[in-house]
Amino acid sequence: MRNVSLVVSYDGTNYHGWQCQPAVRTVEETLRQGTEKIVNHPVKLYAGGRTDAGVHAIGQVVNFHTTKDVPLKGFVRGLNSILPRDIRIQSASEADPSFHARYSAKSKTYLYSILNRETHSPFYVRYAWHIPFSLDKEAMDDTLDLVLGKHDFSAFKKKDEYYHDPVREVLRVETAKRGDFLSIFIEATGFLRYMVRNIVGTVVMVGQGKLSKDRFSNILNSKDREQAGPTAPPQGLFLKEILY
Amino acid sequence: MRNVSLVVSYDGTNYHGWQCQPAVRTVEETLRQGTEKIVNHPVKLYAGGRTDAGVHAIGQVVNFHTTKDVPLKGFVRGLNSILPRDIRIQSASEADPSFHARYSAKSKTYLYSILNRETHSPFYVRYAWHIPFSLDKEAMDDTLDLVLGKHDFSAFKKKDEYYHDPVREVLRVETAKRGDFLSIFIEATGFLRYMVRNIVGTVVMVGQGKLSKDRFSNILNSKDREQAGPTAPPQGLFLKEILY
Repeated sequence: MRNVSLVVSYDGTNYHGWQCQPAVRTVEETLRQGTEKIVNHPVKLYAGGRTDAGVHAIGQVVNFHTTKDVPLKGFVRGLNSILPRDIRIQSASEADPSFHARYSAKSKTYLYSILNRETHSPFYVRYAWHIPFSLDKEAMDDTLDLVLGKHDFSAFKKKDEYYHDPVREVLRVETAKRGDFLSIFIEATGFLRYMVRNIVGTVVMVGQGKLSKDRFSNILNSKDREQAGPTAPPQGLFLKEILY
Repeated sequence: MRNVSLVVSYDGTNYHGWQCQPAVRTVEETLRQGTEKIVNHPVKLYAGGRTDAGVHAIGQVVNFHTTKDVPLKGFVRGLNSILPRDIRIQSASEADPSFHARYSAKSKTYLYSILNRETHSPFYVRYAWHIPFSLDKEAMDDTLDLVLGKHDFSAFKKKDEYYHDPVREVLRVETAKRGDFLSIFIEATGFLRYMVRNIVGTVVMVGQGKLSKDRFSNILNSKDREQAGPTAPPQGLFLKEILY
């Protein structure tokens, strides 16, 4: 039995997220159907990260088991010829039998992209959060340091989502400004649902001068979702990379 | 009578080019209707460059005449609230009565964007020409120098398009490589229709080793469209900037 892993990029605009749900178009369902056409038997896909509706992936990692002798290049070329153009297979490799795209992951990095200028760009309507007011990058950097390390991130979870263990470890937070774009990179061992978007939505309030670093710290410690800022929109979020 | 000029960005994917044509959706028609809603009288738009179907603009310049007392910010905000999100007004200014977006232009710069790697990116399907084979950038640079200066560019015009004077002056040609992207910038006093895309389609053959610099020179001198390479696809082309 082979265990094949794929690195997959997708534009999430036209999908209801990664995970299969009845009666809506998802990336998992689209990719699974394509893979089954190639191997000609039912396939179960395991994904490194389950992206929400409208969220993109640059380096999603997926694995599946097959008995078929399809060469690795055949998966890349075959799937890219079958799949819609908003899903692209970047590479395929043979994985260890024990490899599991989700459970074997050591860290995941998300990128959140903000276009910070008066008017939006038509080329980034699907790929960035447009913020027309000025942002204090230094205050945001300083505040984002607070999420480094192990914390109960319940204050930044999706409302009404329950976690047995809401503690996650953030390994790296970085912001980068290039032209009018402000990118926020967060690497962690794992994420709660909406965690990146809620952290971004709240730290943007800091950048706007509406919230202090102390208040952000209180919000984090409160473990109360009601305390934090709004959820940043999905189109700015990219699952950038998964390390194993 | 005011003469108002606008800098406009648009994603050309969903338009049949700039210029009004019966029964199809064009950028001119969409922008004209929006402007007429604001000034409440018929408007004629003049554009710096007439982009073809599927071609984008970062800095298209447009002017129109109006008697109405709408403040400049009112045009930017008003149009951006009326227009579809793939057309964005970047700025508005009062122009000299004699200003004409097309006839007053000193030069226009087009950018052609190539994604040069094995597999395409889902985020650039609408914004770059995907070329999976390797390109010799040095040979392309060297060849592109040939188009500098005044030439009869008939070899690179659109088939069956007639010009009384097909001579244009190219002021600058530059290529830039960033990551897997190869960008070609061409600045000229004016362009024939399809000129950039035909130059790019032909110079890519040079990059691929299928055509020599000498042969490219012969093609340019032949003034014969049949000699040149294929027309590069529209989605890689951006009207970048117009200087006055």
